[in-house]
Parts: sequence; structure tokens; C-alpha cells
Amino acid sequence: MIESVNNEKVKYWAKLSEKKYQDSENLFLVEGEHLVIEAEKAGMLKEVIVLNGYDYDFKNKTFVSENVMKKISTLKNIPKVIGVASKIKDGKLSGSVILLDGVQDPGNLGTIIRSAVAFNLGTLVLGENTVSLYNPKVIRATEGLIFHLNIVTNPLKETINELKRFGYTVYSTDVTGGISLKNISFKDKTAIIMGSEGSGVRKEIKNLCAEFINIEMNNMCESLNVGVATSIILYELNNR
Amino acid sequence: MIESVNNEKVKYWAKLSEKKYQDSENLFLVEGEHLVIEAEKAGMLKEVIVLNGYDYDFKNKTFVSENVMKKISTLKNIPKVIGVASKIKDGKLSGSVILLDGVQDPGNLGTIIRSAVAFNLGTLVLGENTVSLYNPKVIRATEGLIFHLNIVTNPLKETINELKRFGYTVYSTDVTGGISLKNISFKDKTAIIMGSEGSGVRKEIKNLCAEFINIEMNNMCESLNVGVATSIILYELNNR
Repeated sequence: MIESVNNEKVKYWAKLSEKKYQDSENLFLVEGEHLVIEAEKAGMLKEVIVLNGYDYDFKNKTFVSENVMKKISTLKNIPKVIGVASKIKDGKLSGSVILLDGVQDPGNLGTIIRSAVAFNLGTLVLGENTVSLYNPKVIRATEGLIFHLNIVTNPLKETINELKRFGYTVYSTDVTGGISLKNISFKDKTAIIMGSEGSGVRKEIKNLCAEFINIEMNNMCESLNVGVATSIILYELNNR
Repeated sequence: MIESVNNEKVKYWAKLSEKKYQDSENLFLVEGEHLVIEAEKAGMLKEVIVLNGYDYDFKNKTFVSENVMKKISTLKNIPKVIGVASKIKDGKLSGSVILLDGVQDPGNLGTIIRSAVAFNLGTLVLGENTVSLYNPKVIRATEGLIFHLNIVTNPLKETINELKRFGYTVYSTDVTGGISLKNISFKDKTAIIMGSEGSGVRKEIKNLCAEFINIEMNNMCESLNVGVATSIILYELNNR
């Protein structure tokens, strides 16, 4: 059992909540039994850190004290188990595509991932200014579904041009104009860009699109939560 | 300007974040300019607390020091202005109705209120075990739309029986069965019950329903976020 928070392994694990170390090590942490099980099912689980006094049926376990668990965990209430998982391999563009331009709230990205799995999305593209996939709050909000989605992290301009070459129709969402979502018949190769919480899709990205979508709503409401708006579009894409 | 956190008015305002005092005084707090403006527009604004050094075009202002603002505010970053608003009058059942059974997360309730305004919901019913409407996190998440929705706070059993007497079809959502949302033609008098984040609609409430709805999804995903699921149903209700 490791009891010292100054232990080199402990310091190493604790750093894996930071983007810099996630990138250099190609690893990230999943906290709590449910997420560790999902990482294992996906074949991404490298090792497991278990709070002393508990046990789990995982391979490659290290037991640690409560203080050490506190040092590693990002949660207020420390979990009984944390997994060290491989970062997810970048996918390839396929099926229906949603592109995120500047979604900053980790809960929103987590919600979008959960809904994307629910509604069989082909590819989720995370643009250059979107919150990191491996932000601990994103991972928690996905409820483990992060391992079940085809995700591409790539600059948007480049990706949009690639999608066009592949024959995709690329729509931008627009709260003030465009065709109502209810009136669109989506084709096989559809890509839709969702904007940030505060300011929507950036102008230079909109300029790359010829088609615009909005979700019709009461004008007392300026916009929907971006997790909600994306989920409604995912629902319609899945039902086309 | 009030500088002392022990001032009686300050103590009074600070208590208005607690349900007990919200109920006895029939008042609640709205934090930040946007929400104060919305409360004023709705004719619900009673008085305004302004951080010393700032000014706003509201009536009935009291200026306070930073320490006093910290004492009253529930936010990490204190706002420049807080409004004291009248609690919203309980509405009457009308139009399409959504009933919430045990939604506990304030962010989810806030999201549902925002989407309910966006999609022209007739009535939102908050059951006996749902988070308080006046929880500061709920109010923030509504983005001011709390003042634009017909809301009824009432025990669910009683409300469901009333809806039936009025000729409503009362659906319960069900993640494991029922008719797919896509295949339902909603009638004029439709009421739909949404369940809690963890366990859905309670059995004793389901037993009052003859009709069940689910949102079809990939079986890798156990359920959608309840804010998302409700928003998708609101979207469909609005488009029927």
C-alpha cells in the first residue's frame, strides 16, 4: 500500500488530470467504479488505483491510503477506485458528423457525447477552441460513453474542407436565421456545426457554409443550452 | 451605504437564499444584472442591492460594501447587483403539461425551464420531490426565463387525477418500454411525466398512467440526461 503523497508514482498519477501530461503520456484518469469498468470493457484500462480497505476484480492494482487518493482525485468526495486509461485514438470522418466550435463548458461536452452515442452519431469533431475531451468533468458527464464514440480532434477549417471534398453538405447552426430543423430532409452525408455557449459559430467558420439551420423557438428565449440544441439535432439526424 | 455584515437588513437578505425564508417572506434573490432586468420586466422586482462603486437604473436601491455583497451572494465571484424578487404565483393547468417526478439537479431543472419557454409549453408541474424552483442554481440556469413560464408546484398524484378529470392523456416516460416518441401523434390535451436522474418515474406514479413513451436510442446508452430528454419531448410537443 502506498501511503505517502510524495511517492513518485503518486505524483505521476496526480499529474494525469492535467492536459500537458495527458498529452505527453497519452493517458488520462477515470474516477469511480462505473467509469473504470467502461474503460476496461473498451480495452483501454492500463492500471487501477484502489483505496485501502476496498477491492475490485481488476488487473494491475495498487492500493493507496485516503490521503494519496485525495491527492490523485479531482473529486470532492474521493472515489474508491481510479483507473489509468489510454487516450482514445483519433477516429476518421464517417457517417453523420457534428462539429463543435468553441463549446467551453465540460458538462455540455459530456452531455453531447452521451447523446451522440444514444443517437448513433457517426463522428464528433472537436474544434481547436473546444474544451479538452480529457477534462475530468467532461469524462464524468459522459457517464463512460466516451469510449463508445468516434471522435476526431482537428482544426475546423481543415475538417470542413475535407468534408466538402468527401461530398458532405456542411450546415452551420444559426440562432437568427436559416432553415427550420423541422423542415430539413437530411441526406446521407450531413455535417452540422454547433457554436459556443456565448456567441455561436464564429463568423469565419460560418463563411465556409452555404446552408444554415435553426431550431424554431419562442422569441422570449434567446437560445437553447448547447447540449440541448445538439441533442435535438442528433435526435433528428437519427430519425431521418 | 451598508458596510456591516451584521446589519439587520443584510442578515435578512442573506436568508433569502434559504427555502424556509423564501417561503415565509414569499421572496427570493436574483443575482447579476441580466436576471435583475428580467425580474423587473416581469414586474416582480421589489428592491435592488448594488455593490458600492456601481450604479444601475433600478428603483429602490441600497448600496453595499464588497463584504456585505459576499455575505448575501451565493456566487464565488460576487455580482455587482442582486435583486429581491417576489416568488412566482402558482399557475393553473393549461395547454400541454410536463410533470417532473424527482428531478434533483438544479442545472437540469434550469435547463428544462429554459427549453419549456423556448418550446411554448403550457404548464410545468413540479412534483413533491423535485428540487426547489428558488434554489439559486436553478434560477441562474434558467437565464431569467423563470419569469416567463406557467409553473405549478403540487403533489403529482393529485395533479394527475385533476388532469384526467380535465380530459388529458397522461403519459409516463419509460426507458425500457412504451411507444417511441417518433411514432406518437400528440393530441391537444397531453401531459407527460419525466422521472428523476437516477431512477426514472416512481412506480406508484407510473401506475396512474395507461400510456408510456420512450425516446429510441442505442442500447449502449442507458438513458439521456433528463434535461435533454425533456427538451426533446418539448421540441416534439411544440411541433405536433
